[in-house]
Amino acid sequence: MSKFIDLSQDIFDNMVVHPYDDKVKLYKDKYLEEDKYNNFRLEIGMHAGTHIDTPMHLTNRKTFINEISLEKFAGKGCLLDVRDESIISFKQEYKDVVNENDIVILFTNYSDKYGTEEYYTTHPVINDDLADFFVEKNIKMLGMDLPSPDKYPFKIHKKLFANNILIIENLTNLSKLVNINNFNIIAFPLKIKAEASIARVIASIDI
Amino acid sequence: MSKFIDLSQDIFDNMVVHPYDDKVKLYKDKYLEEDKYNNFRLEIGMHAGTHIDTPMHLTNRKTFINEISLEKFAGKGCLLDVRDESIISFKQEYKDVVNENDIVILFTNYSDKYGTEEYYTTHPVINDDLADFFVEKNIKMLGMDLPSPDKYPFKIHKKLFANNILIIENLTNLSKLVNINNFNIIAFPLKIKAEASIARVIASIDI
Repeated sequence: MSKFIDLSQDIFDNMVVHPYDDKVKLYKDKYLEEDKYNNFRLEIGMHAGTHIDTPMHLTNRKTFINEISLEKFAGKGCLLDVRDESIISFKQEYKDVVNENDIVILFTNYSDKYGTEEYYTTHPVINDDLADFFVEKNIKMLGMDLPSPDKYPFKIHKKLFANNILIIENLTNLSKLVNINNFNIIAFPLKIKAEASIARVIASIDI
Repeated sequence: MSKFIDLSQDIFDNMVVHPYDDKVKLYKDKYLEEDKYNNFRLEIGMHAGTHIDTPMHLTNRKTFINEISLEKFAGKGCLLDVRDESIISFKQEYKDVVNENDIVILFTNYSDKYGTEEYYTTHPVINDDLADFFVEKNIKMLGMDLPSPDKYPFKIHKKLFANNILIIENLTNLSKLVNINNFNIIAFPLKIKAEASIARVIASIDI
C-alpha cells in the first residue's frame, strides 16, 4: 500500500503564469442540457503551474518530452531543506544523502508566494557548485517549489540540461516531506510532442 | 524496481478526436532565437486522446476531478481479454479474477483503429450484466482501448458513474499486459478544475 502526497499546483482559468507566458484559459464548452455532455477545454502553455522542463526548452536539442523514457520521470526522492537561502548553495552533508538517479527536491517554502507576480521575480536561485554537485551525482531530475532554479541567461538550467537532468518547477506542499525518510516521486508528463509538459507530481510513501 | 508500460496515446496537433469535440491544437509559440526560450501551447478538450471521465461528464454532480482523492487513480490492475466481442459480456470466470478496488482494464484490441473516424462509431460496447458486476465488485476505475464503453444515451457510463466508478478511455498497448500476472495502474489526472482530464496512463510491474 502507498500513501500519496500531492505536490502539484491547481490548474484553473486565468491562473497567474510567468510574465513572459500567455494566459491560461479553462472554460466549459459543452453543456449537459444542450449538448448531452459536459466538457471543459484548456488553453495552456507547457510552463504554466507544475511542469517539467526538458533540454529543448533552452537549447536546440530535438528530443520531445514524449520521446524520453518513462524511467526518467519516477524514482527515489531526496528532499533538501533549503529554507531561508536566497542563494542555494552546496553543503558537504549533501554528499551523504544524494545518490545517483535520485529525484532531488529543493524545499525553499517559496511556494507561499505562488499566485503573485513577485513569485516570478524575487525567487531564490541555486549556485554553480550545487548544480555541479547534481551533475557529478548524475541525478534524474531536480524539482523545486520555485518558478526556476536561476534567472536570465539561465546558466544553471543549461548546465543541468547539458547533463540530461530534467527540471520540475512550481511544486507545492513540500513541507509534508520534511520528516519522511523514504519516498518516491511519480511525475509522468503528458505524452505530448512538446519541449516541456504540465504534470501531476506526486510523492508516494510505502505504508 | 519497476518496469513501466505506457498505455497512453500521443497528444499532437490536429489529432483525431471524437466527432462532437473541437479540434486539438498544439503549436510552438516561443522561439529560442527571438524569445530566448522555446515553448509549446496546447488547446485541448478533456476527452481528447487518453483521458479519465468523472460523473460530472454526464450528470449534474458538482465534484471536479481535482477534488477526487489520489488513491482513486492508482492501484492494482486487472486485465480482461475481451478481443472479438462486439458486445462485451459478463463471464463467470471474472468472479475469480476481479477484486474490490481493482482498476479493471478491458483489452479489445480496438485501438488498432485509433486515429480514424470509424474508431468512434463502430466500437464494441459493454452490456448491463458486466457493468452490474463491476458495480457489485466495487472497482475503482474501468479502463479500455475504446472511445467509450457504450453509445448514446450512455446508460453504462451513467451506471458506473452512479457508483463512483471512473472511466479511462482511449488506452493503447494493452497487448503488452496479456501475459503479466501482477501489475499496477498509475493514472493521475491533471490537477484541473474540470469534469475529466487528459492523462498519462502507465502500467507498473515490479521486477
